[in-house]
Amino acid sequence: MTQLVGGIEAGGTKFVCAVGTDAGEILAQDRFRTTMPGETVAQAIKFFRAQEDRLGAAAAIGIASFGPIDLDPRSPTYGFITTTPKAGWSGTDLNGRIRDGLNVPIRIDTDVNAAALAEWRWGSAKTLDTFVYLTVGTGVGGGGLVNGRPIHGLVHPEMGHVRVPHDPSADPFLGSCPFHGDCLEGLASGPAMEKRWHARPEALPPDHPAWILEAHYLALGLANIICTLSPQRIFLGGGVMQQDCLFPLIRAEVVSLLKGYVQAPAILEEIDAYIVRPTLGAQAGILGALALACSPGEDR
Amino acid sequence: MTQLVGGIEAGGTKFVCAVGTDAGEILAQDRFRTTMPGETVAQAIKFFRAQEDRLGAAAAIGIASFGPIDLDPRSPTYGFITTTPKAGWSGTDLNGRIRDGLNVPIRIDTDVNAAALAEWRWGSAKTLDTFVYLTVGTGVGGGGLVNGRPIHGLVHPEMGHVRVPHDPSADPFLGSCPFHGDCLEGLASGPAMEKRWHARPEALPPDHPAWILEAHYLALGLANIICTLSPQRIFLGGGVMQQDCLFPLIRAEVVSLLKGYVQAPAILEEIDAYIVRPTLGAQAGILGALALACSPGEDR
Repeated sequence: MTQLVGGIEAGGTKFVCAVGTDAGEILAQDRFRTTMPGETVAQAIKFFRAQEDRLGAAAAIGIASFGPIDLDPRSPTYGFITTTPKAGWSGTDLNGRIRDGLNVPIRIDTDVNAAALAEWRWGSAKTLDTFVYLTVGTGVGGGGLVNGRPIHGLVHPEMGHVRVPHDPSADPFLGSCPFHGDCLEGLASGPAMEKRWHARPEALPPDHPAWILEAHYLALGLANIICTLSPQRIFLGGGVMQQDCLFPLIRAEVVSLLKGYVQAPAILEEIDAYIVRPTLGAQAGILGALALACSPGEDR
Repeated sequence: MTQLVGGIEAGGTKFVCAVGTDAGEILAQDRFRTTMPGETVAQAIKFFRAQEDRLGAAAAIGIASFGPIDLDPRSPTYGFITTTPKAGWSGTDLNGRIRDGLNVPIRIDTDVNAAALAEWRWGSAKTLDTFVYLTVGTGVGGGGLVNGRPIHGLVHPEMGHVRVPHDPSADPFLGSCPFHGDCLEGLASGPAMEKRWHARPEALPPDHPAWILEAHYLALGLANIICTLSPQRIFLGGGVMQQDCLFPLIRAEVVSLLKGYVQAPAILEEIDAYIVRPTLGAQAGILGALALACSPGEDR
């Protein structure tokens, strides 16, 4: 029996709202710019009310949100956006505002944990219990499932902000992260590439040296993730990953960095099937939100 | 009702065998040098047979093993030591030899995952579901629980082999890891300290600059673990961590590296209770093995 669920892909630039089924079929969808919280949330609520009249009530709504967000169910600020540079959004009770506006159970998580959940539910990660979803675009973000559930722990992962070796004699760019300078995001995000090479990533041809350096940093990040989390697979999404030449470069560099130490056929023999594109493509974000609505969790 | 369980702390230098209760009480214990697999396993089996006559049969035996080990329950070499530099031990079916010798269910895991499990069962991690246990000694090893269960995924974590920034102008030592050179273990293990400073760590006074550098590398490793796994607490054990001055230095450096980005009171306000000594001290290893025997898992 199919069930109606709702999803909000809450990004810093745009909100996508959808109503769909627990089979991952989208029945209605809308997208609008992220302005101030009051206006943006009101638009989302208006969308879901209209769809309720048309399709019926959603059993739950999932919010796949930009972060950082408070995901501790015991915290008084559970479901709040915490400290974001996005003007007006710090301290916004996103979870509570949607729940109170629609009177429906809400399940909120990071956009990357949600995308991982969608890959597990409707993509190619069905048989996995421990894997990572890394997105490389305006920022670098990572999430995933460990032992069959999204990683939360203390807060949620911030995989883009790991420190990796950076040799200033080979790459004098100091990094673009306002917090950490040359963390992974500061070295390898889209804006970092643009600042270093004075061109947007999509304008750089596949034979530009930018891509070898980019693959090097991302491979350093992935090798560390492999040593720390031991994922069964790694999905790489986001705008920067649209450059096809990156995948083979990254795979080769990860193998080279690990030097045979992690004894697993997935890495030693089948790296092409280990570091892969998400199967859900451009729909990954909103399907992530719908997947959250389908998943057992804390309803607040 | 208490139950008898057995444990083997299988280290590269020594084996510790114990019979105890599921309350973590040790009733009998023996230790001997790790020689060749045949001889060492025979000594372990002899110990458990003698204790069976004296105390009764253990319901299960846990093996907290040096690694790498194959922990994939579907693998034909499940429970084997895979590629270790330890002479004679590569390809040893440790799990099978003990199981066949004693005809009892075996639960095997890495020494660090097992130590984490003991902290969860009998130490100070009872209320946590996601935390890390890092040991700094002859090597650097990390394990832990995520979502309430030990991290396995593809294989098991190898946290000592993450790459961290290394500035050769400040620290010209090239690193001691035979695989990766200046990975975390290569820069911060006991042997790495000894090679860099020409003195064993325990001979270096607390005001020696070695400790500031050591804290810096370990803090880089921990900051990356925090960004990747989001642990609720980090336990630091092992011989190198016996130097008391290290804890405050590491805590301050972790806070400094994260720059307020991870918004959690545990890090921003209560770091002294966040990066801590294991509560089980010198018994952590063998209690880890007993904790494995008490834990539901694959019996092979």
